[in-house]
Amino acid sequence: MANTTKVHGSVLSTATRRVLVCLYEKGLEFEFVPVNMAVGEHKKEAFLSLNGTPLVTPGRQMATLSVWMEVEAHHFEPAASKLNWELCFKPLFKIPTDTAAVEENEAKLAKVLDIYESRLTQSKYLGGDSFTLADLHHLPSISYLMGTQIKKLFDSRPHVSAWVADITSRPAWSKVVAMN
Amino acid sequence: MANTTKVHGSVLSTATRRVLVCLYEKGLEFEFVPVNMAVGEHKKEAFLSLNGTPLVTPGRQMATLSVWMEVEAHHFEPAASKLNWELCFKPLFKIPTDTAAVEENEAKLAKVLDIYESRLTQSKYLGGDSFTLADLHHLPSISYLMGTQIKKLFDSRPHVSAWVADITSRPAWSKVVAMN
Repeated sequence: MANTTKVHGSVLSTATRRVLVCLYEKGLEFEFVPVNMAVGEHKKEAFLSLNGTPLVTPGRQMATLSVWMEVEAHHFEPAASKLNWELCFKPLFKIPTDTAAVEENEAKLAKVLDIYESRLTQSKYLGGDSFTLADLHHLPSISYLMGTQIKKLFDSRPHVSAWVADITSRPAWSKVVAMN
Repeated sequence: MANTTKVHGSVLSTATRRVLVCLYEKGLEFEFVPVNMAVGEHKKEAFLSLNGTPLVTPGRQMATLSVWMEVEAHHFEPAASKLNWELCFKPLFKIPTDTAAVEENEAKLAKVLDIYESRLTQSKYLGGDSFTLADLHHLPSISYLMGTQIKKLFDSRPHVSAWVADITSRPAWSKVVAMN
């Protein structure tokens, strides 16, 4: 898998320069690949095909996506990570599970998933019609929770259940799981 | 400068897994370097020293930082990029400068810089006491503007002027400029 980090851009472009200064500030090494914008190389297939799955969306859709990323960060993740700690990691480390904490967070997660169920009747993914970071951010926690008693909370909500099946079957996620 | 992109983490960590699934979705190649959290490797110097300049801040300070990043994106950058287009890039491409657009955006930028001048009396950098992304994002446009008549808008505001001198003299930025 080893390869060199490449930055494709123009040294005169302010956008490219922002990326470059970040890399230098962080002390990360990279190879610079000049893109000749004067002859339109940035609009040609060779350059455009460098992008993988678009994980964000342009314009106004980005606002919707941001809202769902906030919901994930402030509502889903706090409950999900506590449940994972109690039900996945504590058993792994031979620490007793706190059943009161499980009950409390199970109830919280159920409420979040009710909102997701409603949202997913309107669009296939949380941020809209395509898979984005708003969905991706859920993958690590959901993947662990599906191996616990919490699975029932996802299974009992048909749109949530279909969404979980969809996002967890993405090839990129399978590659992460295969790293164990 | 060529080197391999490395991801240092634990395959069991949900945080690491988020990073990994993003890389796989984007089709980016990398080398995974396991960090053994069970023996505390993530708290040891070898791991901690991997991080370069911290460009974001933890906790509540991040909210302040985000506000200034928004100010940059919605107020500074629109005026600055139009001025750069008129005063740097158009001359480069032998296109006549639109003096009305220059005047309009110069007035807009002056107002933004008044706000910066006031802010920079309170803290050394826009996001607080340390250099962050809120400052870094300005570098490419400011660097170009300092070579135009717009330089006077920065020079005439003492705190803004000191801030510009500070951020443009960072070694990381010098490396970007040297790429020309």
